[in-house]
Amino acid sequence: MNDVDIRKKIDSIVCDAKSNLASIMHSNVSKRDLALKTIADLLIDNKNQLLEENRKDIESAKSMGLPDPMIERLTLDEKTIEGMVESIGTIINLKDPLNRVLEERKLKNGVFLKKISVPIGVIGIIYESRPNVTVDCAALCIKSGNACILKGGKEALHSNRFLSGLIKKGCAMSSGLNENVVQFIDITDREAIKYLLQKNDFIDLIIPRGGEGLIKFIVENSKIPVIKQYKGICHVYVDDKADIDKAIKICINAKVQRPSVCNAIECIVVHEKAAKEFLPVLKEKFDELGVEIRGCKRTADFIDCVSATEKDWDSEFLDLTVAVRIVGDLDEAIGFINEHGTKHSEAIISENEENTEKFFSEIDAACLYSNTSTRFTDGFEFDMGAEIGISTDKIHARGPMGLKELTTYKYLLKSNGLIR
Amino acid sequence: MNDVDIRKKIDSIVCDAKSNLASIMHSNVSKRDLALKTIADLLIDNKNQLLEENRKDIESAKSMGLPDPMIERLTLDEKTIEGMVESIGTIINLKDPLNRVLEERKLKNGVFLKKISVPIGVIGIIYESRPNVTVDCAALCIKSGNACILKGGKEALHSNRFLSGLIKKGCAMSSGLNENVVQFIDITDREAIKYLLQKNDFIDLIIPRGGEGLIKFIVENSKIPVIKQYKGICHVYVDDKADIDKAIKICINAKVQRPSVCNAIECIVVHEKAAKEFLPVLKEKFDELGVEIRGCKRTADFIDCVSATEKDWDSEFLDLTVAVRIVGDLDEAIGFINEHGTKHSEAIISENEENTEKFFSEIDAACLYSNTSTRFTDGFEFDMGAEIGISTDKIHARGPMGLKELTTYKYLLKSNGLIR
Repeated sequence: MNDVDIRKKIDSIVCDAKSNLASIMHSNVSKRDLALKTIADLLIDNKNQLLEENRKDIESAKSMGLPDPMIERLTLDEKTIEGMVESIGTIINLKDPLNRVLEERKLKNGVFLKKISVPIGVIGIIYESRPNVTVDCAALCIKSGNACILKGGKEALHSNRFLSGLIKKGCAMSSGLNENVVQFIDITDREAIKYLLQKNDFIDLIIPRGGEGLIKFIVENSKIPVIKQYKGICHVYVDDKADIDKAIKICINAKVQRPSVCNAIECIVVHEKAAKEFLPVLKEKFDELGVEIRGCKRTADFIDCVSATEKDWDSEFLDLTVAVRIVGDLDEAIGFINEHGTKHSEAIISENEENTEKFFSEIDAACLYSNTSTRFTDGFEFDMGAEIGISTDKIHARGPMGLKELTTYKYLLKSNGLIR
Repeated sequence: MNDVDIRKKIDSIVCDAKSNLASIMHSNVSKRDLALKTIADLLIDNKNQLLEENRKDIESAKSMGLPDPMIERLTLDEKTIEGMVESIGTIINLKDPLNRVLEERKLKNGVFLKKISVPIGVIGIIYESRPNVTVDCAALCIKSGNACILKGGKEALHSNRFLSGLIKKGCAMSSGLNENVVQFIDITDREAIKYLLQKNDFIDLIIPRGGEGLIKFIVENSKIPVIKQYKGICHVYVDDKADIDKAIKICINAKVQRPSVCNAIECIVVHEKAAKEFLPVLKEKFDELGVEIRGCKRTADFIDCVSATEKDWDSEFLDLTVAVRIVGDLDEAIGFINEHGTKHSEAIISENEENTEKFFSEIDAACLYSNTSTRFTDGFEFDMGAEIGISTDKIHARGPMGLKELTTYKYLLKSNGLIR
C-alpha cells in the first residue's frame, strides 16, 4: 500500500469512529452489556474459524523464524478462547462506570453543580502480539462507552482481523450500537501509525501496549495525549529494621513467580546493617531457584556474585537475574530508587513505621508497598475487575487502569436564570 | 543566543528544577504557605522597582508599535500589584491539596490499600503577556507542591524576570524550600520552547496559556503531556420550551458582560418555534448594546441582520459580534453544537426537563448549563478558590482547573508479608 492509500484508509477509519461515537457514548449500560454478551456468543460459535485464522499467523510467524516465546504468546487454543469469553463475562458483571456522580454541591453564586463521569470519546489502542488484547481492549472500551480504534501487531494480523470482525458484528447485532464504534487497522506499515497519531481532531487518547521501542515511537510522533505504560524497574528495599524472613519470602515472590512482567523486581537494595544476615540466605535460595545475582562492590563482601555494571541498575531483566545494591542508610536507598526506578512499584521491608512512612512519602512511584510483594500491582489484584494496562504516567491515570480510568467527567450546572 | 547556548541553558534549568523537586514535593503545607507569605511581602516591599521594570516593557512595547489592548494587559500599577498580593493570600487560605485520602479499602487478597493525592512533579507553564500570570501560576504550583518552569511572553520579559526573582527569593528565604523549585526562562527565542518540549525526562506536564497559535505549536512539538486550553466557541440554545425573558437575560450576559473571554458565547441557536417571539426582542436589546448579529438565512425572515458566512460558525469573535442559527428541533441543535463547539461551555434555555436532560447527555462539553449563563465557567465561580486555567481537554482535567487538578495520586499498600 502506498502512502496516499494508507492516509485515505486511516482518514476513513477515524472519521467512521468519530461520526458514530454518539451511538455508544450516550447508550445505556444494558445496550453495552448486550453487545458484550453477543460478542462472547459469537466467539464460541466461531471458535473453529478463529483457530484456523490463528494457524495462518502461527505458520507465517514460524516461516519468518520468530522466537518461540513470541509464537507461544501468539497461539490461541480452546483454553485461551474460553479465557476471552470469561473475561468478557467479568466485564459484563462490572458496574457501569458512566454517569457516576463525582461531586454535587450548590455554589456560593447559587448555581447547582453536579460532576458526573462520562466516556472519553475515541480511544486508539496500539499493541503487540497477543490476540486476546483485541478482545480485552474492545470489551473495556465498549463497557465504558468509548469508541476504539485497534491497531495490533502484524504477527497476529489474521487472528486480530477475524476477532475484530466478530466484535463489530456483535455491536451491530445488539440493536443500537453501530459496528463502526470498533475500528480495526489492518495496515501493517508503520506509516499508518505515524499518520494515525496526527489525528488529534478525531482521537481523544492513545494507549500503547508493547515494548519500549513502540512506546517511544508513539510519544515522539503523537499529537494526541498518550498514557504510557513504560517498563517497570521495581525495587525491594530491605531495611535495617527488616524481618529477614519476610524479606526473603517477598524477594523470592517478586523476582521468581513471574519474572517476565513489569511488576516483578529487578533490584534489591539492602541496608548495610541487614546485609550480613540477609544476603547469605538470599544467595542460598536464589541459587536453588536459578536466579543470578549481580551485586555492587560491597555485596561481594558478603556473598559470591557477578559484579554489577552501571547498566544493570537501569535494566529491566525480565528473567531470573537480579541486581543487588548495598546502601548506608534509608536516604541513600530512597535516592537510589528515585534515580533508577521507573515510578512503577517499590517495596520496603521494615518493622519500623517511621522508616516506612518516609519511604512512602519520599519515593515517587505509582505503587508503594510495605512488607508486601510488588507483584500485586495489577487491576485484578486491586479489585478493579479488569485492566487495560498499568500507567507509568502521572497525568490522568497512574498505576493499574480499569474502567474508571477510561472515563472523564463533565459538569452539569442548573439555576433558574442566574447570570454573572 | 545561538542554539547550542540555548540548549545548554535549558538543560541546566530543567536539571535544576528536577534535582530540587524533592524539597517542595515532600514539604508540609506550613512551609509552602510560609514561602507564599514571604513572596507576598516581597511584592509589597519591592513595588517601586517592579513598576520600574514594568515601565521598560511598556516602553519597548510602544516602540515596537504593539496594539493598545496588549499594552494595557502588560501594564502594572499599584492596583494590579495589590491584586497579585491578594491572590496569593487567597491561595494561602486554601486547604492543602496534598495527602488527601482518595480511597481506602482492604483488597480481597488481604492487602490494605490507600490512595492519596500527591504533586505531579515539574510543571512547565508557557504563557503570554500578563505579568500577573507569573505570580498566579508560581503560587498555585508552590501550594500544590510542584516545581515549575515559567516561560512568559517576550513583551513582559523585564517584569516577569523581576517577579520570578522575587518568587525564588521568597522560596529560599522561607527555610526548607529551594529557590530552584521555581525556574524562569528568559530566552525569548522560540527555539527555547521547542527544545524545552523535548525534555520529557525532566518535566511531567506542560500547561500553555495563550492564543491558538501558541497552543498548536506546543501540541505539535511536545513529547511532554500537555493540558490544552483552546478557544471557547460557546453556544446558548433557546428551546421551543424556553422562558423568553430568561433567554434574553442570559444571552445578554453571556455575550456582553465580557466578550473577550473564552466562556462568553459566540453563537445563539434558536428553535424555529421560539424564533418569532425571541429574535425581535434580542435584536432590539443587542442594537442598544452595540452587538452585531450575523444570522443564517432563516434568521433574516425574522430580523434585519448581517448574513453569516460558513466561517462565522467556527469563529471565536471575542468582541460584540454574535452568530444566530435557527434549527428545526433539539436534535439539530445538538448536532450543530457538537460540530461547531469547542467542548467548553454550552447552555440550554428551556422549561422542559426532558429536553434539558437530552442536551446535558448528548452534548460533549466540559460544562453544560440549564437556564444559566456560560460565564460561570471559572475556577472562582466553581468555588475552587483559584484557577490555573480552563481545560478543553478530556484527559486528566476538564473545565476549570484549580489546585486539585495540579495533583496526581499514588497507592500505598500494606500487609504483614503477603505475596502473590
